[in-house]
Amino acid sequence: MFSKQQQKYVQSLQIKKYRQEHHTFLVEGSKSVLELMDSDFQVELLLCTPKFFEENEKKLKKILVEQISQTELEKISTLQSNDAALAVVKMKPNVSLQADSEEFVLVLDDIRDPGNLGTILRIADWYGIRKVICSDTTVDFYNPKVIAASMGSFTRIQTFYTNLQAYFEKISSQKPAVIGTFLNHENLHQFSFPDAGYIVLGNESNGISAIVEQLVTSKVTIPRFGHAESLNVGIATAIVLDNLMRRK
Amino acid sequence: MFSKQQQKYVQSLQIKKYRQEHHTFLVEGSKSVLELMDSDFQVELLLCTPKFFEENEKKLKKILVEQISQTELEKISTLQSNDAALAVVKMKPNVSLQADSEEFVLVLDDIRDPGNLGTILRIADWYGIRKVICSDTTVDFYNPKVIAASMGSFTRIQTFYTNLQAYFEKISSQKPAVIGTFLNHENLHQFSFPDAGYIVLGNESNGISAIVEQLVTSKVTIPRFGHAESLNVGIATAIVLDNLMRRK
Repeated sequence: MFSKQQQKYVQSLQIKKYRQEHHTFLVEGSKSVLELMDSDFQVELLLCTPKFFEENEKKLKKILVEQISQTELEKISTLQSNDAALAVVKMKPNVSLQADSEEFVLVLDDIRDPGNLGTILRIADWYGIRKVICSDTTVDFYNPKVIAASMGSFTRIQTFYTNLQAYFEKISSQKPAVIGTFLNHENLHQFSFPDAGYIVLGNESNGISAIVEQLVTSKVTIPRFGHAESLNVGIATAIVLDNLMRRK
Repeated sequence: MFSKQQQKYVQSLQIKKYRQEHHTFLVEGSKSVLELMDSDFQVELLLCTPKFFEENEKKLKKILVEQISQTELEKISTLQSNDAALAVVKMKPNVSLQADSEEFVLVLDDIRDPGNLGTILRIADWYGIRKVICSDTTVDFYNPKVIAASMGSFTRIQTFYTNLQAYFEKISSQKPAVIGTFLNHENLHQFSFPDAGYIVLGNESNGISAIVEQLVTSKVTIPRFGHAESLNVGIATAIVLDNLMRRK
């Protein structure tokens, strides 16, 4: 039975402090939970409606499942409607990541909006990027809104949270290519990407910080043909990655 | 003085039915209102804080201005916070649009989310697209969330709402190039764009409708290198337009 105490625990995971205390997070809705089942994340508890259970029983083996009503599910879910499932999942350790040869890694400098981070993960996954390094100030990967906006891509992207300055100082002897998006620099359409490296995207309002700017080895600009002042950071990520991948 | 009746009128414009009745709509927040002042939209009434008035007095000439407090402003605003201004603006007539020679026009087939439409307008404006044709089922251009998400670009984009099938039948003798995004068709990175035409983006869940698909002359696909199932329609718009503009 789904107890009052369990309900309290699940709801507490909407808040970062409690996620960090328990090393667990929430995955909500049919699509995200089904993608979770195909991943190597460890599920602590799955709460789902009888209908979802019946339709997906084979995929749920060896998992602690509680069947609850849609009303109960929606009471503890951050989603407006959820007629399927909610999982409590163990976080992965924050392990350092690097770009292998012939690999590009995305670097996020202070992305604050959870919807933007989720969207960026989805785009990275579309373009075959597997690693994302986030500044310590970037919104929590395990925020339910990030998980939801990633549309299942959170299962396929490795993330590492760190101090970006310290990180790049540590790998400076490797002389990595660090590409950042700025205004009024080299036209992205003419830019020759190297074989591997790091692509930095900056904060929604302020762009790439002064400290991280000093670590950038190539400054590129998404060419503008009209009059909008700027592009959303998710849009900018997609355009840079599309240009990166078309070079092949 | 800002009367109770005026307050009621302003608030009613959050709803499409009343916007259509009065042929007016809301523009909210400092950036959007300032972009409005540089446009050819006719402002019926501007409500703003004394601070906004003082800072922008020269730009506000010949407009009916009421100064109100931030508290009063936020009471009638759809924005969570608004310490600047709200304008009541006259709608433009729904006049038919066509692609000139050497011009591309964006066509939206049943875009439902106001945030998506606003983002698409902003992207179109970035890439120098000036005309957007919307299916009758596309969310209202004058929805406050569309205006807000467009970040001022609503002032520079002409829109025309119509039945897309009837529209394309009417111009069929011109044999226009109609490019649509689909799964599993010609790779966008290899596609040769013509000099002018129409670029169709489809509904968030269902893509381009079967009826509109029949009007498409070239089907293109955004190449995928990873595993995400799909891209958001705003992201897809940006990638197609970036590929279009780099051909030059």
